[in-house]
Amino acid sequence: MEFSEHIKTANVEEVVLRQPLHPPSRGTLCITGHHLLFSDREEGSCRQVLLLLRNIDAVEKRISGSSGTITIKCKDLQVLQLDIPGMEQCLNIARSIEILSCLDGVSEMYPFFYRPSDVSLKDQWGLSSPEKHYCQMKELHDRWRLSTVNRDHLVCPSYPPAVIVPKTTDDDTLEKAAKFRQGGRFPVLCYYHRKNGMVIMRSSQPLTGANRKRCREDEQLLQAVIDGSDKGFIIDTRSSQQALQARLTGGGFESKSSYSSWKRLHRQMERGKSLQESFIKLVEACGDGSNNMDRWLSKLENSKWLSHVQTALSTAGLLAECVERDGHSVLVHGSEGTDSTLLISTLAQLIMDPCCRTLEGFLDLLEREWVQAGHPFRQRCAHSAFSHTRLQQESPVFLLLLDCVWQMWRQFPLALGFSEALLLRLAMEAYASDYGTFLCNSHQERCALRVKENTHCLFRALLRPRERDCYSNPLYEPTELAIWPSVHPQSLQLWRGFFLRWTPQAHHLEEVQEEIRNMVTEWAKLALS
Amino acid sequence: MEFSEHIKTANVEEVVLRQPLHPPSRGTLCITGHHLLFSDREEGSCRQVLLLLRNIDAVEKRISGSSGTITIKCKDLQVLQLDIPGMEQCLNIARSIEILSCLDGVSEMYPFFYRPSDVSLKDQWGLSSPEKHYCQMKELHDRWRLSTVNRDHLVCPSYPPAVIVPKTTDDDTLEKAAKFRQGGRFPVLCYYHRKNGMVIMRSSQPLTGANRKRCREDEQLLQAVIDGSDKGFIIDTRSSQQALQARLTGGGFESKSSYSSWKRLHRQMERGKSLQESFIKLVEACGDGSNNMDRWLSKLENSKWLSHVQTALSTAGLLAECVERDGHSVLVHGSEGTDSTLLISTLAQLIMDPCCRTLEGFLDLLEREWVQAGHPFRQRCAHSAFSHTRLQQESPVFLLLLDCVWQMWRQFPLALGFSEALLLRLAMEAYASDYGTFLCNSHQERCALRVKENTHCLFRALLRPRERDCYSNPLYEPTELAIWPSVHPQSLQLWRGFFLRWTPQAHHLEEVQEEIRNMVTEWAKLALS
Repeated sequence: MEFSEHIKTANVEEVVLRQPLHPPSRGTLCITGHHLLFSDREEGSCRQVLLLLRNIDAVEKRISGSSGTITIKCKDLQVLQLDIPGMEQCLNIARSIEILSCLDGVSEMYPFFYRPSDVSLKDQWGLSSPEKHYCQMKELHDRWRLSTVNRDHLVCPSYPPAVIVPKTTDDDTLEKAAKFRQGGRFPVLCYYHRKNGMVIMRSSQPLTGANRKRCREDEQLLQAVIDGSDKGFIIDTRSSQQALQARLTGGGFESKSSYSSWKRLHRQMERGKSLQESFIKLVEACGDGSNNMDRWLSKLENSKWLSHVQTALSTAGLLAECVERDGHSVLVHGSEGTDSTLLISTLAQLIMDPCCRTLEGFLDLLEREWVQAGHPFRQRCAHSAFSHTRLQQESPVFLLLLDCVWQMWRQFPLALGFSEALLLRLAMEAYASDYGTFLCNSHQERCALRVKENTHCLFRALLRPRERDCYSNPLYEPTELAIWPSVHPQSLQLWRGFFLRWTPQAHHLEEVQEEIRNMVTEWAKLALS
Repeated sequence: MEFSEHIKTANVEEVVLRQPLHPPSRGTLCITGHHLLFSDREEGSCRQVLLLLRNIDAVEKRISGSSGTITIKCKDLQVLQLDIPGMEQCLNIARSIEILSCLDGVSEMYPFFYRPSDVSLKDQWGLSSPEKHYCQMKELHDRWRLSTVNRDHLVCPSYPPAVIVPKTTDDDTLEKAAKFRQGGRFPVLCYYHRKNGMVIMRSSQPLTGANRKRCREDEQLLQAVIDGSDKGFIIDTRSSQQALQARLTGGGFESKSSYSSWKRLHRQMERGKSLQESFIKLVEACGDGSNNMDRWLSKLENSKWLSHVQTALSTAGLLAECVERDGHSVLVHGSEGTDSTLLISTLAQLIMDPCCRTLEGFLDLLEREWVQAGHPFRQRCAHSAFSHTRLQQESPVFLLLLDCVWQMWRQFPLALGFSEALLLRLAMEAYASDYGTFLCNSHQERCALRVKENTHCLFRALLRPRERDCYSNPLYEPTELAIWPSVHPQSLQLWRGFFLRWTPQAHHLEEVQEEIRNMVTEWAKLALS
């Protein structure tokens, strides 16, 4: 496809840009296939603003007389305004942005065109792989094996080619268990707790249906997970009511009689549309210009976002308690096993495992639990909170994860090796990126589109020396202990750094971080000299 | 008076102390005239807890069988619990605490007994005086003079002996103006804005009464303030409705006809009982152990505390705008001129004047605007949020000031030279202290009780080298600019450091501050070596 067919006006002079935290400036606007470029040519300054069109969530135009104003609402919650002379030019620009910001074809997206000079497409893509991960975890090898039953993505389209399963379970059993789980997501290992050998498994719901179908192989697989120990827990991220209802549409849950060694716990977590609506309400509240304090607190409460944060952290806490305190293995799933399931398995690992708390370890965790494990980023992050299009599969689950991690970061400011800036960067990249990491819904899709061969990897980029400096926590002091987040309502806060990012206050907080960082750098230099 | 008559049981062994952030510990409890002392004598540890009885706001006892439990709720919001063997001992201890924590006589209070070895009562008391302040402000001398009309506290019992007034106004005029203002608080200068020569004056309400009485001398005094400039503003911290009603009880406001060069603006600020009730509701909400996020946000909203913070900051912003941006002199008053008036004049000075933002400058500001200016600390801070006694004159105006300053500190983390720890310390000291600074309601009372001769000065103590290290902001970067606080509801936050101080989270935040402080110290050492 030629992008140029969507660009009737490529350049406009004398455009005024209004952007948060900056004074208005006058300059030239330019639209390309992937970017909006604004260059300020006024005396003494030469500011350039380069905006990925993919980052634009909504465009609103207003014509008055012979000129017009376009309001651009970005997925990272920034709101820009362009005053454009000439009605036709204004309409052309708006139309181009509308079309080019919503292109469907993944291989037309910018990551397939982004070619920075200092890296090569031949560089390693990704931080690790299930194979490497297994290889490094020697303590696993006794009881666990790497299965390549999914090598062609035929058993489970959303799983990577290799997964870790009990040694005593053969591929045949896995294939049959996969047929009994929604989307083929049979139980696989996602975390091994070194201290006591207990594990976290994750899957999708079993397809018991109204007839309460059973599957011997699925039962055997889970029995093999338990092995010698007395019993395991299943954390179902739906209410028991929801789990019961799921049977009517072919889904279901593990009944006591068929899985006698497993005890089910239900914890209802919001997902899908209702989570997206909560996000939209919160962003609306944050943008409310009224000066009424009570109205703000009511709207904040009414959005329910902080309740979702609380539920996610407390369910993750429950999971970590089962594994670390009570010494049980746990299987986690809801319906599809691609959203809340990943959310709480990730948070529980952050609570228990010091290795996940370094900058590299955290990115590794995200790669494993979100990218490789098949969180459908393309569907979930197609639009953010401003879009006027009818929502389909959008849901800010990954953003909720980042918010929960931020809450932990705030509660344990010394225990995590990365900075708030990293969480902000990831929140932005998930919705619009130069990199290929968050493209596609699954490993299979990424293979089909040759994402690894044709795009650069975000996680690799974040670990280059300059970026590493910027995204690590200067106050980091590793601890071997579990870090149990408080989920008291009084302990949880609005993530102002993200939701109110484009206000002067958030900006001042960034200055403090910058100041601390400079101090540490200077200090390190002096200490070395 | 002998304290011993109130102490029937002075020592109890085998008491268990439960304190936030610490494991329970067993030891000896001892009650003295001013302190509760707990010594833990278990193997390997020798923790001592020394609590000023004056810091205790409420005592609750529960007897079960032959032992009892005393819950101690402190004015600094800490809640302690003592398990005491022996019913009689428990009742005796509770009774002693109840009586000794509420003694009325100022000269029986601990500051009159506190004698640290490293300072002498002969050391200078206080940081400055109106005389010194005037002397240093050379630019004032043209148009302003120091009047000692109040040298014997006869003209205004709550003013210091010396005040700054227009040069053209003689003492006779002042005396007559004082009779026309509630409590004799005639208009005096509290801030001179070097950039444009405009000033902030403060007073109490004029006693116009239902008959709309006038006072030529009061009008002349205010006319002399304006002098050459076109007009001044009066910020009345009551609604116009409230100001009208005040006439019925002898108070009133400056009518347009009598004060033609002055324009009145009304901004209703909460004070007195309703502010105290807001404080109590907020503390209740903070102590609510329920895990319901919505309930917490509703209670936070319902307390209205953050609305009061918003009103105070926005009224102070209005005041600073009048002076700094629009170049007018402003008179501030409400009814008595000892509460909201001081609140907003202090905040406005912090906004405009870089000198007030250093550690020393801020303490100086507090001394001038609160201690010398006659905020009735004794009445306002007699009880905090837990007390069961009938409230009389209690109102957390000074605490509201500290909260507002904290909001500014958070919004401009580099611009203030002091730390959050200072604000926390001041919040504590205002309610219970080893020092004499916050005793009494006025300069007159302090003189009568010989506070300067018989107690030590808190502000002096806070400026000793070790304290100075602890209470300065390691990231301080002075700016000459005004710092305009954002009063958008989204920009204001609960002061968790104070209201949730005794939770692990606040504790973690203190660790971060400590870490930054250490880093700066180390850095300074390295830079010097």
